[in-house]
Amino acid sequence: MTRTSSTFLPPVMESRRWLDGITFSADRPLINVSQAAPVDPPPHALRQAIADAALTQTDAHLYGPVLGLPELRHEVATQWSAGYGGAVAADNVAITSGCNQAFCAAIVTLCDQGDEVILPTPWYFNHKMWLDMNGVRTIPLPVGAGLLPDPEKAAARITPRTRAIALVTPNNPGGVEYPADLVRAFFDLARSRGIALILDETYRNFDSRTGAPHDLLTDPDWAETLIQLYSFSKAYRLTGHRVGAMISSPQRLAEAEKFLDTVTICPNQLGQIAALWGMQNLAQWLSGERAEILDRRAAIEDNMPALETDGWRLLGCGAYFAYLQHPFADSSATLAPKLVREAGVLLLPGTMFTPQGDPLGLRSFRVAFANVDRDGIGALMHRLSGLGWPLAPDRANA
Amino acid sequence: MTRTSSTFLPPVMESRRWLDGITFSADRPLINVSQAAPVDPPPHALRQAIADAALTQTDAHLYGPVLGLPELRHEVATQWSAGYGGAVAADNVAITSGCNQAFCAAIVTLCDQGDEVILPTPWYFNHKMWLDMNGVRTIPLPVGAGLLPDPEKAAARITPRTRAIALVTPNNPGGVEYPADLVRAFFDLARSRGIALILDETYRNFDSRTGAPHDLLTDPDWAETLIQLYSFSKAYRLTGHRVGAMISSPQRLAEAEKFLDTVTICPNQLGQIAALWGMQNLAQWLSGERAEILDRRAAIEDNMPALETDGWRLLGCGAYFAYLQHPFADSSATLAPKLVREAGVLLLPGTMFTPQGDPLGLRSFRVAFANVDRDGIGALMHRLSGLGWPLAPDRANA
Repeated sequence: MTRTSSTFLPPVMESRRWLDGITFSADRPLINVSQAAPVDPPPHALRQAIADAALTQTDAHLYGPVLGLPELRHEVATQWSAGYGGAVAADNVAITSGCNQAFCAAIVTLCDQGDEVILPTPWYFNHKMWLDMNGVRTIPLPVGAGLLPDPEKAAARITPRTRAIALVTPNNPGGVEYPADLVRAFFDLARSRGIALILDETYRNFDSRTGAPHDLLTDPDWAETLIQLYSFSKAYRLTGHRVGAMISSPQRLAEAEKFLDTVTICPNQLGQIAALWGMQNLAQWLSGERAEILDRRAAIEDNMPALETDGWRLLGCGAYFAYLQHPFADSSATLAPKLVREAGVLLLPGTMFTPQGDPLGLRSFRVAFANVDRDGIGALMHRLSGLGWPLAPDRANA
Repeated sequence: MTRTSSTFLPPVMESRRWLDGITFSADRPLINVSQAAPVDPPPHALRQAIADAALTQTDAHLYGPVLGLPELRHEVATQWSAGYGGAVAADNVAITSGCNQAFCAAIVTLCDQGDEVILPTPWYFNHKMWLDMNGVRTIPLPVGAGLLPDPEKAAARITPRTRAIALVTPNNPGGVEYPADLVRAFFDLARSRGIALILDETYRNFDSRTGAPHDLLTDPDWAETLIQLYSFSKAYRLTGHRVGAMISSPQRLAEAEKFLDTVTICPNQLGQIAALWGMQNLAQWLSGERAEILDRRAAIEDNMPALETDGWRLLGCGAYFAYLQHPFADSSATLAPKLVREAGVLLLPGTMFTPQGDPLGLRSFRVAFANVDRDGIGALMHRLSGLGWPLAPDRANA
């Protein structure tokens, strides 16, 4: 037994292996909606800013502080304070090598072997993998109507070994935006039980609601309970640069610093320079990006009626994701590779986001639609219809 | 108890706090030999290659494969096969976000809670920190003459829970280059006992010996036992870009992929592009860098006779490091902050590289001399002489 043998293979990399040996014709190319990633580079002005830094800034090539560039930490603090209506200081902010790493850092400051963390299911698979590799028990919290988790059901799962509840909003894989009062209810629960609330807001820039998505940062003692996670990757198309953030108490960040120093020494400098430039210069561009993503989300919804006649259902939709219930008898794990071969569509099955045997996982798919335009979404949805596969008993009898 | 509370604060960051509130005059500036890092940026042509990639390559901004750019993996395989006279294929190579992360990845593929890893002491502190945070017991192996570890003493420390022996050559913090037959003896020991040999060769480009520093890769079954670690940071002055490598079996890299996917998703792309460009274009430039580092090493040795009259001894010297025994009564942990205040020298005490109370740690300092030129080394050594501090009993009676 080793730490890595306690968990599963990376889903995105595993799904790419389904493409091996398959050729796609030019008039029916692969539609890849497996990974939450823009496929276009950042805007030219941002690329120019990176190039200029590479040529002229010595510091861009040298080790920086473990917790990140002071200017970027300060910018996050300023924009967060304004955006969330709370008090976030630069020493509440650590920059990490991507948002996955921010989750990893949060967990190692909270947990030891045998501790427990509550994750709503479907979960984000890298969260589950990190808990597995750390000997931390994942306590699944199946979501209810609208893919929303229930604080009362979470409360019933808290034990003396529970260290945190981790939420993702807008949700990966479900797409659903958690209402502000639901997030507040989880915060109050976590605080009352002396555990942490980890809130992964990787997709916050694509939330359909205007204004702050929750009011937690207006609480003067927020940092005693809340650990907020963020990614610069989606907002500024910087997935290849690995820059994220962890927002918490200075005391917790000092603990996280031990982990971050050991696992990467510091976030890479050009990525941080790019994130800072983006924050300072791309607000208007980003609002255009958000409008485009919201239009793609609408395209998913517009195409649903036709798919519903085949027995499909849209369980959640928002940010980069649509979460679909399929009507077929076979498991999503069996059907996903078959979709590549028969429909030229690569997506991830719900089984990659749920505990083994979970009924929701067997019947669902995640569609990461952000990198497909409105026409492409129409083509995608068309390919999912009329597959003619054996239906599940509940659908066959419908 | 949490994973991070089980280990100590990052030494380099801790040492920077000793500078708080101290001002240094222009005619006697701080000499900072605390971190193994170049202070100059990479050569202009490499910076230009990074800038060009940022402007023209879309892929430079997007997620890449978890195990790194195929071209870079291939280049490492080719140069390693030629340089070490063995058979290294691209699928033996994973690119990581720095060499620290390569060590982290190696450990999680080998160990579970309660397992053991043997580290010669003085050790590299981030190795110790990672073992602590993973609940892996570090078994110290005190070095002997010439700061060299003894395979027989290592053999006596192997238990049923031992998973690996980890060596660093050229050594951090000791500077010493491990003889090829010593490395081979450790490899044979590890193989015969069914454990792994982790060989961290971060500083291999500054080895004073010509040719391959060991013959392990000529063994057809090397990948069953050996995990080799490398950094591109020192060779091409890319510390701020976070690019390293792990060289092992494809099976082990598939396990490491779970960890790397979860902790960073992929190495950042511009850093990998820079490393590849460096490998393909900077061989001659790098040989000049090596000559300069070897001259600085010689400068340390040239300055020792004066320092020896004060009771100092040079225990090890090579690559980026000199490891000095001081003649004073107080612990190096007490003396290091005092050196900042009284001599304007920032270096790390031996206690940061050794178990608590270790006699060698109490009496030693690491000097990371790579970023100080010959004149600066003269000035540094001069500042260490004539301190007038109370001598240790063995020196006071000498």
